Amino acid sequence: MPRDAFDGFRWIDEAARGREAAGLVRTLRPRPPVSALLDLASNDYLGLTRRPELTGAAAEAARRWGAGATGSRLVTGTTELHAELERELADFCGFEAALVLSSGYAANLAALTALTGADSLIVSDAGNHASIVDGCRLSRAGTAVVPHTDPEAVRKTLDAYGGRALTVTDSIFSVDGDAAPLAELAAVCREFGAALVVDDAHGLGVLGEGGRGAVSAAGLAGDADVVATVTLSKSLGSQGGAVLGPARVIEHLVNTARTFIFDTGLAPAAAGAALEGLRLLRREPALAGRARTVASALYEGLTGAGLTASRPQAAVVSVIAPSAEAAVRWAGDCRSAGLAVGCFRPPSVPDGISRLRLTARADLTDRQIRTAVDTIVATAPTG
Amino acid sequence: MPRDAFDGFRWIDEAARGREAAGLVRTLRPRPPVSALLDLASNDYLGLTRRPELTGAAAEAARRWGAGATGSRLVTGTTELHAELERELADFCGFEAALVLSSGYAANLAALTALTGADSLIVSDAGNHASIVDGCRLSRAGTAVVPHTDPEAVRKTLDAYGGRALTVTDSIFSVDGDAAPLAELAAVCREFGAALVVDDAHGLGVLGEGGRGAVSAAGLAGDADVVATVTLSKSLGSQGGAVLGPARVIEHLVNTARTFIFDTGLAPAAAGAALEGLRLLRREPALAGRARTVASALYEGLTGAGLTASRPQAAVVSVIAPSAEAAVRWAGDCRSAGLAVGCFRPPSVPDGISRLRLTARADLTDRQIRTAVDTIVATAPTG
Ligand SMILES: Cc1ncc(COP(=O)(O)O)c(C=O)c1O
Ligand SMILES: Cc1ncc(COP(=O)(O)O)c(C=O)c1O
Repeated sequence: MPRDAFDGFRWIDEAARGREAAGLVRTLRPRPPVSALLDLASNDYLGLTRRPELTGAAAEAARRWGAGATGSRLVTGTTELHAELERELADFCGFEAALVLSSGYAANLAALTALTGADSLIVSDAGNHASIVDGCRLSRAGTAVVPHTDPEAVRKTLDAYGGRALTVTDSIFSVDGDAAPLAELAAVCREFGAALVVDDAHGLGVLGEGGRGAVSAAGLAGDADVVATVTLSKSLGSQGGAVLGPARVIEHLVNTARTFIFDTGLAPAAAGAALEGLRLLRREPALAGRARTVASALYEGLTGAGLTASRPQAAVVSVIAPSAEAAVRWAGDCRSAGLAVGCFRPPSVPDGISRLRLTARADLTDRQIRTAVDTIVATAPTG
Repeated sequence: MPRDAFDGFRWIDEAARGREAAGLVRTLRPRPPVSALLDLASNDYLGLTRRPELTGAAAEAARRWGAGATGSRLVTGTTELHAELERELADFCGFEAALVLSSGYAANLAALTALTGADSLIVSDAGNHASIVDGCRLSRAGTAVVPHTDPEAVRKTLDAYGGRALTVTDSIFSVDGDAAPLAELAAVCREFGAALVVDDAHGLGVLGEGGRGAVSAAGLAGDADVVATVTLSKSLGSQGGAVLGPARVIEHLVNTARTFIFDTGLAPAAAGAALEGLRLLRREPALAGRARTVASALYEGLTGAGLTASRPQAAVVSVIAPSAEAAVRWAGDCRSAGLAVGCFRPPSVPDGISRLRLTARADLTDRQIRTAVDTIVATAPTG
């Protein structure tokens, strides 16, 4: 290869030209402190992130504990605040123990690398989140990717393998908002002595009694062979992630999970805000149901107007667009009309189908829901 | 294999017994808001994390921007605050552009996966941080691990390979505090058109003019073929990480780095605190030199009393212990005497040598330095 084909980072320009030609350039759009847009794009499902209780808790935690955790949680980075958050999170979700990490991404990497080994197999749903896919890659285990939400495929894979195995799935898939068949998956896993890891990022705060999550709703929380990962960055309005499970699993992670051991602890402000988010959800358990009601209302409004959308299983509503270009234009037109929506297209969508991704928030008013529906319908691609 | 050998998570108990037998159990020790211990274990090199300017900035950012970023930075998670932090960080360190991620760990994963491909080679120092090792594993590139701080070994490896390559190194190695030969590495890389990625986690705030970091000190900042990764969680007293480099590299990361695209943006409180930390360092450039002076004083005191320590290249001082057990006992005795020190032992140390790890802080007084030296000397293992 001629040296100047890759000299330093010059090769990047070619990749950039490819993206540009394909109309797939992503750019960052910094938002102001107060936006005029109606937000149906964030994952702030319960509308907590701006609540004064949360921002006040973040401020108070920074004042009391410092702006940073100052080290790995195994050295100087564990405060009593982290421990309190872990206790309340485990208790709320119905697990024996919890471990807080700096992000949900890090939590998935931790669970998947530390709970598998070279002699084990990970069975992973084809629609799983990027952080799960990366966790599988980072682990020393083999990975079998199975068709989306297909317990029978999991069954066949486990049966053919016969060794130590772990099945991993999103509870609610982040792109389409559809649900994994958790009870069936758990039953299949148990047939073969396999463990089940559920990423409940989009279930916590939305599903289950008072928002206890999809694993709790499926009656699996606290089971000896089940682990959940959650984020503190969506319903809880903050930043961070956690692994929930039996005490032996959490101890194992403390001792072996590299993204826990070699990472600075979550900043106290984020831990404090997440803890307050959790307490607020306990005080206002109706928030979870409201997020689901808003999602249903969005779905009914959009499909009633003739659009194709997936029936929401939690708080994500996905609306099909005819093409990637149409999806981008549609999202842009919504934006111009004052509405922020997510836009997913290849390569972020595994099935090649582009869509608008709407997130329901518990604090949306009926009027805002109507405005959102009207805007999306009015800007819909024709034909 | 009999099923109950791995049933669910039961296999973990055996791993736990192994750790216990080897005396290698790690436990979390939550600290109270105000500790009576003299801290030589955190990475708060400049003593900023408790400064009211930083905790105030964290509080103000939470109030102004919310407790969380609410989504991926490509959707709703980029605020003007993130953009401001990126501009000032790039400017301070002498790079064209910067990209802020939720942790330094995520920054290394992003750089190493997005800047390599299946057709390329990563040349990685044997002493590199866990997040670099994981980045190599997660990338699709081949990885050649070369002996510690050995530019000639890098040269031979690049020469034998001949294709697109990237060399990655810590600037200051986290365990021992020794320095990478950055200028030599850059020269070797250039011979072969290879890129150089430097993890400046322990250089930023300590080395270079006013704390601009080791890459700046080596005269490499802003070069077209050099990228630096940094953390916001050590000298800057907060949480988060960043990649610094040419604009084309940063654009490429925005478009392709999975730990950027599929991760919630850094919480505003952490971004605000890091930005204030940076501004404080600009206002008080002597802090960087003071951290180095404190490290030298610790080194002089300890070696003067007959202990074996590595001459500090930045703010980390590593003191050799005769065995893993002795290191654990020594650190425990220091703790009982009121001094918190880090303790590194296998498997966290690549060379099998256990040590106490001391971090110098710019805000330690001469009296505290003397106390620290006296305590470590008084508790040293005999024989
Ligand atoms: C299903 C799922 N898992 C994990 C994550 C990662 O969580 P975090 O953003 O807190 O790192 C996300 C989104 O960001 C997600 O959608
Ligand atoms: C050399 C090095 N790189 C990266 C990291 C990861 O940074 P962070 O803790 O901010 O994720 C650390 C320590 O934590 C480190 O020591």
